[in-house]
Amino acid sequence: MLSKNVIQQEFKKIQQEICDSLEQLDGLKKFSSENWTRPEGGGGISRVLKEGNIIEKGGVNFSGVEGKLSAKIVDAIKVKDNNFFASGVSIVLHPTNPFHPIIHMNIRYFELSDGTYWFGGGIDLTPIYINVVESDLFHKALKKTCDSFFDGAYKKYKAWADDYFFIPHRNETRGIGGIFFDRLNEDSTNKSKDEIFKFVCNVGRTFAPTYTDIIRQKRNHKFTSKNKKWQYLRRSRYVEFNLVHDKGTKFGLETNGRIESILMSMPPVAHWEYCHEPDEGSQEKETLKQLKKGVDWII
Amino acid sequence: MLSKNVIQQEFKKIQQEICDSLEQLDGLKKFSSENWTRPEGGGGISRVLKEGNIIEKGGVNFSGVEGKLSAKIVDAIKVKDNNFFASGVSIVLHPTNPFHPIIHMNIRYFELSDGTYWFGGGIDLTPIYINVVESDLFHKALKKTCDSFFDGAYKKYKAWADDYFFIPHRNETRGIGGIFFDRLNEDSTNKSKDEIFKFVCNVGRTFAPTYTDIIRQKRNHKFTSKNKKWQYLRRSRYVEFNLVHDKGTKFGLETNGRIESILMSMPPVAHWEYCHEPDEGSQEKETLKQLKKGVDWII
Repeated sequence: MLSKNVIQQEFKKIQQEICDSLEQLDGLKKFSSENWTRPEGGGGISRVLKEGNIIEKGGVNFSGVEGKLSAKIVDAIKVKDNNFFASGVSIVLHPTNPFHPIIHMNIRYFELSDGTYWFGGGIDLTPIYINVVESDLFHKALKKTCDSFFDGAYKKYKAWADDYFFIPHRNETRGIGGIFFDRLNEDSTNKSKDEIFKFVCNVGRTFAPTYTDIIRQKRNHKFTSKNKKWQYLRRSRYVEFNLVHDKGTKFGLETNGRIESILMSMPPVAHWEYCHEPDEGSQEKETLKQLKKGVDWII
Repeated sequence: MLSKNVIQQEFKKIQQEICDSLEQLDGLKKFSSENWTRPEGGGGISRVLKEGNIIEKGGVNFSGVEGKLSAKIVDAIKVKDNNFFASGVSIVLHPTNPFHPIIHMNIRYFELSDGTYWFGGGIDLTPIYINVVESDLFHKALKKTCDSFFDGAYKKYKAWADDYFFIPHRNETRGIGGIFFDRLNEDSTNKSKDEIFKFVCNVGRTFAPTYTDIIRQKRNHKFTSKNKKWQYLRRSRYVEFNLVHDKGTKFGLETNGRIESILMSMPPVAHWEYCHEPDEGSQEKETLKQLKKGVDWII
């Protein structure tokens, strides 16, 4: 029987592997590492790299926490028990170069003492400038990982990501999407717990090679201060999504999580400009126009 | 009988007076002005000044909107009717100089077609560096306005502001507070609608002279890049409060308000730094230590 301990040990291993890969990609800086404990139970390892060659600010967080859910959360997630255990790996990278996309990855496991459990996770890409070759590469990698879980998994989880990584108050997607899934267990997937776990770990292990592939193609892409300004503006949309809509962030804030780990996803610098509208025909405008649900990014 | 039209005309006048005063204070730039309409009914005037002498980005918004509340909001604000009218003036100023505090003011009126109505509002100050003389001046001005409404009003609305302008996930107040009040009507105050309206307008008219007094005292206060960096970090707390906790922002987002007007309160530039902790004994640390509820700022 797959225990929570086996799951969190594997998640911790994935965190380490990813940090190693990203340090190699960055080539300049290393991740800091803080172990933290949560008064109510459990803890985590927060790893942050800043002002690197590639990564302006990036966080790779592992956590394994337990305790009691508040009545509000029990109600919100519609469960019967309140003794929970949750473990996951969460990543957001904000690269320096505006031609390098922001990337997010999360894999997570949740269980209650009554035996209820589920896995969740996802990866999504937020280019500052959308590039169709990169979008194709990214979505193809996700499709490969998903469809080895079951036929049609990519299609399903891609549509789920389109719905999830959406900013209603802007009527924009956060980026070019990716995959998102939640509440995966025997009942919802007709797969064994072991098979679901294997899939979730595969998602975790799809992250580093795919992002490395993307960056390698344009490692030294030149950029101007205009490009950088656009990046700062797009990053503020990222902030809006995470603080207003993201369920993981909300869950963290409401379960008294470690605040610096939860908000590790915030960009180092973000700008808000009243009524900013890029010029018609500009690269910026073209990107904006493509921030829609339902785009098939695979060429 | 005090009609909604009289109320919104007066609010519009207050908006104009404040913009005039702030342009005089700034001395360099003027407010832009956009009239907007809301498909469901009503509209507003959004006025923004940016890159001035004093104000890096400031918004003074008037709105008068009507329509139907969603079931979710009817439930949240515990009312029986869903045909609403709401009018208000909302201001947030982000000054350039880190020694000039961020300021926020809001006055608002809300009514339902069943006759239910209330006024709300508040002013609060968010210094990047707390200064006791300025804090005293600010709170004294508010006390004067409040206590002419009724004895003890300042004490009551000051405590309300301490509770409201609080960031639970940081365990910090947003700044040195000020006043906050909501749902003022005959029943809750034992004052007539006219008297409450007069008080609310007085709050609106306390804003510009008080802020002008504060800035005048340190108009040309020198600052370093270290001070500016601290300002960027504190502004990100402002973003966190507004996007995660502020009820006005939530109401705006959930009633399909004009997004650029709602998020006018966002700072032009904000920074997030993982685990930033100012040095013990520094001015920054001293400010952090004072971001607590229940401080008596009047000397």
